[in-house]
Amino acid sequence: MKSFINQPETMLAESLAGFASAHSNLVNYCAEGNFIRRKNLTSGKVSVISGGGFGHEPLHCGFVGKGMLDAACPGHLFTSPTPGQIAKAAQATNTGAGCIFIVKNYAGDIMNFDMAADLCQGSARQIIVSDDLSIEFDKVARRGIAGTLIVQRIVGAAAETGMPIDALYALGTRVNQATHSIGVALEGSFNPILNQKSFLLGANEIEYGIGIHGEPGVKRVDMKSANEIAADMCGAILASLKGEAQKPVLLLVNGLGGTPLSELYLMYHAAEQILNASGVTIARSLVGNYVTSLNMAGCSITVTSLDDEMLNLWDAPIETPTLRW
Amino acid sequence: MKSFINQPETMLAESLAGFASAHSNLVNYCAEGNFIRRKNLTSGKVSVISGGGFGHEPLHCGFVGKGMLDAACPGHLFTSPTPGQIAKAAQATNTGAGCIFIVKNYAGDIMNFDMAADLCQGSARQIIVSDDLSIEFDKVARRGIAGTLIVQRIVGAAAETGMPIDALYALGTRVNQATHSIGVALEGSFNPILNQKSFLLGANEIEYGIGIHGEPGVKRVDMKSANEIAADMCGAILASLKGEAQKPVLLLVNGLGGTPLSELYLMYHAAEQILNASGVTIARSLVGNYVTSLNMAGCSITVTSLDDEMLNLWDAPIETPTLRW
Repeated sequence: MKSFINQPETMLAESLAGFASAHSNLVNYCAEGNFIRRKNLTSGKVSVISGGGFGHEPLHCGFVGKGMLDAACPGHLFTSPTPGQIAKAAQATNTGAGCIFIVKNYAGDIMNFDMAADLCQGSARQIIVSDDLSIEFDKVARRGIAGTLIVQRIVGAAAETGMPIDALYALGTRVNQATHSIGVALEGSFNPILNQKSFLLGANEIEYGIGIHGEPGVKRVDMKSANEIAADMCGAILASLKGEAQKPVLLLVNGLGGTPLSELYLMYHAAEQILNASGVTIARSLVGNYVTSLNMAGCSITVTSLDDEMLNLWDAPIETPTLRW
Repeated sequence: MKSFINQPETMLAESLAGFASAHSNLVNYCAEGNFIRRKNLTSGKVSVISGGGFGHEPLHCGFVGKGMLDAACPGHLFTSPTPGQIAKAAQATNTGAGCIFIVKNYAGDIMNFDMAADLCQGSARQIIVSDDLSIEFDKVARRGIAGTLIVQRIVGAAAETGMPIDALYALGTRVNQATHSIGVALEGSFNPILNQKSFLLGANEIEYGIGIHGEPGVKRVDMKSANEIAADMCGAILASLKGEAQKPVLLLVNGLGGTPLSELYLMYHAAEQILNASGVTIARSLVGNYVTSLNMAGCSITVTSLDDEMLNLWDAPIETPTLRW
């Protein structure tokens, strides 16, 4: 496979420069601190900051803007941003009300955001996203995958209303608890720096419970029909949801980068049929490539059970490079 | 390679059902006529209709909504919609001011939209999009590729202002004349119905001047750096632009489906540098997977030289499943 690339060393900087220029009405790139920030900050609003390894675009930079993130810190390919980078983003966007860090549950991210929080000397609180139900039924051990954008969006919308930092922390933690995701890969992604595939699957093999960095999934199984794959995924989500299935839900079908949009809508249709048949009401939906793993073929399904507050915040105005309504 | 699919025969219907359900606030699926239409029509407004083979999503259905299309008619995979399908979409959305058909310049599409126009008995006019400069410097022979969305958007925005049909035809023709595109494929796409790749490229080979259906490009050349590829593409665009390069331009870097968004921004950066160095002012931009060829790896670059009217129409409010501002 091949990539549009000049040098591995300059790939991230060139891509960020293009991103910042294409969206210069909404964001700025701060070269000194190596982060993307909102062009216009709101004084007295809690700053909502996220970040993580490069390779998951549009996560995180594509979500910087009104109603979502104030800053995003991109690390190198599948590598956490540095504590200094995060602390500089916090310093640049903290207008007095403190900062919320939204952190995917990976050891490297946790460590570096922890160190950044120390550098912020008490002005930052962290929400850990752990929506990947494939790992275990223990939320502490779960990875953060596509559900991250739901936590970012709802906390970002709440911050826009002037909600103080402790209430944002409680809200974000609640959204994370209500969010359940599972991913499936049909093909590994191509890593343009290593110039190799992240992993190889057989012609009739798919990987169930995949992460977004090419980590191994829970199991490799034979290729199945779309409806059968959706049934496996939704079955696991329904088991994880338990009593929460009574609430209206947000259904996100997220592409991992290399699957055509038409297939994501087909998977949305399959998931919708299954969830409806189980008595789940789909109140809101989102379908597209949002939390990717370079060009991995596959998708994840995420369900968040929504209370009224979360639903209203999801609907609130948003203006980012990727999501707008 | 593998796809999320149940049966080839039901793929399109299931995908459209998912699309219509996920965007039920904006669109309806008319099963009888097999088209997607705007949920709310504006009486007395010219109806703007487009369509074409499946496999290019989000084109065309993703662009149905306020400020763009009133209806989209999807054909089967890389196959034109039928005349009856198009005529039914016209009948369902014509509120008295007639219909504009926006048609990509392919023999099958031209023939079927022509027959649909005949069925409409004088109430429809057609704008042919022919932005692919790879074919020849003769606009009549050029294919319609990613520039299609720019014609759809500007004509759709103008229709929203109440512009009559003849003026819309003249405007759309002007936008097409001002629009210049060129595509490059790094890898062929995977066709889930034939269960094979559309074409095979060597490990160090790319295809220059590619179409969006897996048609052959102008030439196969050795793999190059992103900057070199962008220089080839922008050089061809600048030659095609000629005197139009004095006007501000819209720069669209469009992914063909299988290339990560981060690489599209890198290509945007490269194209921006080259165009700026040639004295071209980039007034507006768009980067993403909009006119795809299933999961083909590659991108196209489109430049439209904008007059004031076109620029204002580009900026007007838009609310479709894919584009909103």
